Amino acid sequence: MTAHLALVTALLILLLSFDKRSLFQYLKNKIFIRNPEPRRVDPAPMESTPCKWDETALLVIDMQNDFVLPEMGSPMLVAGAKAIVPSVAKVVSLARERGILVIWVVREHDPSGRDAELFRRHHYSNGKGPTMKEAKGAELVEGLKIREGDYKLVKTRFSAFFNTNLDALLKATRIKRLVIVGVQTPNCIRQTVFDAVALDYEHVTVIVDATAAATPEIHSSNIRDMKNVGVATPTLQEWTCTAT
Amino acid sequence: MTAHLALVTALLILLLSFDKRSLFQYLKNKIFIRNPEPRRVDPAPMESTPCKWDETALLVIDMQNDFVLPEMGSPMLVAGAKAIVPSVAKVVSLARERGILVIWVVREHDPSGRDAELFRRHHYSNGKGPTMKEAKGAELVEGLKIREGDYKLVKTRFSAFFNTNLDALLKATRIKRLVIVGVQTPNCIRQTVFDAVALDYEHVTVIVDATAAATPEIHSSNIRDMKNVGVATPTLQEWTCTAT
Repeated sequence: MTAHLALVTALLILLLSFDKRSLFQYLKNKIFIRNPEPRRVDPAPMESTPCKWDETALLVIDMQNDFVLPEMGSPMLVAGAKAIVPSVAKVVSLARERGILVIWVVREHDPSGRDAELFRRHHYSNGKGPTMKEAKGAELVEGLKIREGDYKLVKTRFSAFFNTNLDALLKATRIKRLVIVGVQTPNCIRQTVFDAVALDYEHVTVIVDATAAATPEIHSSNIRDMKNVGVATPTLQEWTCTAT
Repeated sequence: MTAHLALVTALLILLLSFDKRSLFQYLKNKIFIRNPEPRRVDPAPMESTPCKWDETALLVIDMQNDFVLPEMGSPMLVAGAKAIVPSVAKVVSLARERGILVIWVVREHDPSGRDAELFRRHHYSNGKGPTMKEAKGAELVEGLKIREGDYKLVKTRFSAFFNTNLDALLKATRIKRLVIVGVQTPNCIRQTVFDAVALDYEHVTVIVDATAAATPEIHSSNIRDMKNVGVATPTLQEWTCTAT
């Protein structure tokens, strides 16, 4: 009789010493949920159809001489930029075919650099510096041209949305989907993308081989992070074939 | 004899049925902490470099149960978050000693999820979802506490600056330097940092071992990118010893 009591007591003590919430959770999961729905951590998939080209804009970011051409000798040079010029040109041409609004986002700075980021202001002296207004460094690289009906947007920070009229323009033109190309992935591309996500644009696409960074590793780690917040990252080939 | 056994057993059961962590915490507070250290508001004595603590704010980002504790079962869990809680607490305590303004940046969402990012809105259903206003998931993790004189800032997007009064608050209090800790490196930390850079804050510091991400690789690639735009990324030990 005493032995029985001791055994029951021991079991009771053991049971009570568990963290009851965890135990309950565990039992609930093990016993009651036979076909547990797989936990979904991934962002919701963006719908692939229909293709709403009239609700889509293409942002071509910073494809300017100082970012792209080594011979400019600019401190802003992006090592991977030159290689993507043909892809960017192809995206622009495809966008025109589809009737997508093309927005050319460029940096243009005051010769004094007073409108540049603090950490870059030292690049400006004696009235010279990278992507200076009206200088050759700020021009679009050869092979890319603004056409009638396109929109040119000047910015002085990484994100195309920062202190610009871009969001207002897109809302006024009922654009809800963005396709983004240009340089460079960790800075102007990514900041524009994250602002677009924060601003609830329905669909944000970064074309992975029409964007570039200083190294392939910097490029790919940033593409990974953007994917993790629901951004589509097709290749040019894939984007050519799909509808969004 | 049996009566004695029953009494001892009953007491044992009673003791074991308590939430032991709370009990331990209670006893610790009651017994061991006799003279709690008074809060020091004066800045620490100046070292060689100009340490402008009265121009500095500490942003503690998203150190909430749903981001930090695996047992919450939240889709927002950041794998590396729990490990940095002690470091974050240490930074907060050091900031208080130095007289640095402590700003607690937290997410608090509507139960419907209508104020969450589009790509996360599917996590909200039946009036439940991550970091819901007034739910346990939105509370600061144990070990971190808001004190009088601190500032609490609620946000609904990655960047602490996005659609909040943070920039206005900092400008009004003449703060030009930011120290940032919390989770997670590629999203809320990085977006806050890049906005701070775009907004021309003079000095932006991310404490590398008081911030965390899903993996060490995601953490370090984002630290690298932030370094590349002029952000200081000391360890807690280094920050403890330096003046900025």
